Amino acid sequence: MTDYECIGFLTDYGTEDAYAAVCGAVMNRQARHTRVIDITHDVPPQDVRRGAAVLAEAAPWFAPAVLIAVVDPGVGTARRPVAVEAGACALVGPDNGLLSWAWDALGEPSRAVTLTVVGESADHGSGDVSATFHGRDVFAPAAGRLAAGADLTALGAEIDPSSLVRLPQPLVRRQGQGLVTEVLTVDRFGNVQLAARPPDFPLPTGTRVRVGGAGGTHTVPYERTFADVPPGEVLLLADSAGRLALAANGASAQVSLGASPGDLLTLEPVTR
Amino acid sequence: MTDYECIGFLTDYGTEDAYAAVCGAVMNRQARHTRVIDITHDVPPQDVRRGAAVLAEAAPWFAPAVLIAVVDPGVGTARRPVAVEAGACALVGPDNGLLSWAWDALGEPSRAVTLTVVGESADHGSGDVSATFHGRDVFAPAAGRLAAGADLTALGAEIDPSSLVRLPQPLVRRQGQGLVTEVLTVDRFGNVQLAARPPDFPLPTGTRVRVGGAGGTHTVPYERTFADVPPGEVLLLADSAGRLALAANGASAQVSLGASPGDLLTLEPVTR
Amino acid sequence: MTDYECIGFLTDYGTEDAYAAVCGAVMNRQARHTRVIDITHDVPPQDVRRGAAVLAEAAPWFAPAVLIAVVDPGVGTARRPVAVEAGACALVGPDNGLLSWAWDALGEPSRAVTLTVVGESADHGSGDVSATFHGRDVFAPAAGRLAAGADLTALGAEIDPSSLVRLPQPLVRRQGQGLVTEVLTVDRFGNVQLAARPPDFPLPTGTRVRVGGAGGTHTVPYERTFADVPPGEVLLLADSAGRLALAANGASAQVSLGASPGDLLTLEPVTR
Repeated sequence: MTDYECIGFLTDYGTEDAYAAVCGAVMNRQARHTRVIDITHDVPPQDVRRGAAVLAEAAPWFAPAVLIAVVDPGVGTARRPVAVEAGACALVGPDNGLLSWAWDALGEPSRAVTLTVVGESADHGSGDVSATFHGRDVFAPAAGRLAAGADLTALGAEIDPSSLVRLPQPLVRRQGQGLVTEVLTVDRFGNVQLAARPPDFPLPTGTRVRVGGAGGTHTVPYERTFADVPPGEVLLLADSAGRLALAANGASAQVSLGASPGDLLTLEPVTR
Repeated sequence: MTDYECIGFLTDYGTEDAYAAVCGAVMNRQARHTRVIDITHDVPPQDVRRGAAVLAEAAPWFAPAVLIAVVDPGVGTARRPVAVEAGACALVGPDNGLLSWAWDALGEPSRAVTLTVVGESADHGSGDVSATFHGRDVFAPAAGRLAAGADLTALGAEIDPSSLVRLPQPLVRRQGQGLVTEVLTVDRFGNVQLAARPPDFPLPTGTRVRVGGAGGTHTVPYERTFADVPPGEVLLLADSAGRLALAANGASAQVSLGASPGDLLTLEPVTR
Repeated sequence: MTDYECIGFLTDYGTEDAYAAVCGAVMNRQARHTRVIDITHDVPPQDVRRGAAVLAEAAPWFAPAVLIAVVDPGVGTARRPVAVEAGACALVGPDNGLLSWAWDALGEPSRAVTLTVVGESADHGSGDVSATFHGRDVFAPAAGRLAAGADLTALGAEIDPSSLVRLPQPLVRRQGQGLVTEVLTVDRFGNVQLAARPPDFPLPTGTRVRVGGAGGTHTVPYERTFADVPPGEVLLLADSAGRLALAANGASAQVSLGASPGDLLTLEPVTR
């Protein structure tokens, strides 16, 4: 049994309704001594890719932990509810790819089960699993039991980890002296995070880089941090998650560049 | 003394200001070993009905718990601050109806008090109760003491539970072969939750139902879950809280139907 | 060693990304028995003044506590990362003035250090401090250690508390029979909080006050609470933080008055 330090919890439930809190109460019942840390509940509704990206970025900082993630457009269908061991974490959620980018950060899945154990009714229901709220009825009870020390195999039948659904990797492709790469996320500050990592495009600090995309072409320097460029100006940097990102000093790179998640950008060093 | 598993906390304070957090710190002081789970702080300002609906939906999943709810347009007036035992929960809040729908889920109030015990000053105030922030000065200290094991009667003078203010029940009325019912809530996904419950309108799965309201008339099937209809289409289902709801597969039923909380809808089975 | 009751955590990170949660996980690793209470993560991006105002209002209700605050436009530059003892609290954050208004509430800084101890890498990085995410790599590890019992001096080299950066105090100035004062914050309910405190402008309840500003001139009564004026009307009151504020009964004083943080308002008693 692994000693998990906490439960990290990510959904697209928002915080206006009680959905996330009800799951928290269910987990608290089974694991009263394990802290539940909300990663975010503001994944855009049913945006599995965004959920996968945020989970992958958070996961290594939570390990060893139970990570429960629910962005689940297929709730109530045949998609499998699963729990997966990967590195020092146990991940719980729908088998729709949501968990798969976290494996790049944590390590490949070593064991996996389809969840068959479900939560208790709350003295007011039928004890049946609802058709629409597996966060409460399937995933939270499983996460709570894992945090309380249950082995993965107590939660359901083992499945072959290689059968788990994986999201396609976001695009990173060399192109001449440069790179074509996908915008992975845009954060609250307007930082535009790319799928590419610094080793994909090794550059000396100070190099000027031409960035092309649907929002036009911009030439920006590759620098270490925001303050290395004048206020309002855009730079390319290695971000805190180990990816390349376009950022601006005291401003939004997204606004300057007009880039959104899923867009393709080209990066080329400017040589004169 | 009941052993409460946690404190559930609901307000209309939002999360931009420190109001909810300050209440959390006050509760933590008195009940350091009881987890505080935020149900939501995003009830629209002063919307007592919405607060009551969310609290009632969450309550049974928290029981046994202390539930503190503050949506309080009458703060500083003669409305009573109360603590109420109902089923396995103790509820704390203003006596304005906010707590009353939770009693349907938890059980009728067995005991109630008007709160007269108040919080300590925080070394910087007068020790007086503010006229505008009873969450911090009255309700949080009471909730903290209950969670720490105080009996209800240690917090104030007993009152007759039948004197507590109740919100009117949302409308559900048979009409011919069908039903007139009120929209209770609309959630983040655009699911339109009705006051009616499946036993109010028993239907075989697959039945087509005519839904009429200010947004026009739509005919939708009664199904088990989102994926039982094509993408974008609306269905009627029994939701995870045991109510009828209009939902859409990967889309917003609210947008399709133009329905808002408080609206009346008619439901009629289509017979041919 | 002080026994801190909790960690209070304030940032401008928002809750859509995992930034605040990752810091929470880092703190949990070092201080598993200390609760982390999120004060807010919705400070407008890089708005140091707003962060300072919210922190100062919350701080006395958290004491004794570790308070970690990160609104940090200068991350990666020469601005110092600091930890400061003030009253019963230890404050951790950038030395850009963000912490300074809390000292008015908690007491003057008695000791301070520049942070040199940093977090562990999370098994996936270089162990280096990122140039852009000192919340995770510098401030959260320091806050966690303080909560776990470390002395301030274990975290870095002592500096002279008088060298710490302070934000200018918001304007409060007598003017004839009245006052010129700055709008400090506007909350979710549209309450317009002024920098002035009741002793700056002593008035008997019921006095009518002329309020002038860019949004025109309004005459409002000085009362105790919202319900002392008719629905929709504006009043002046002493708020729960001990400041003067303009509020409205069941409505937004901000909408009525057109006032925003930083605006100057004049207040004059109406004498006839």
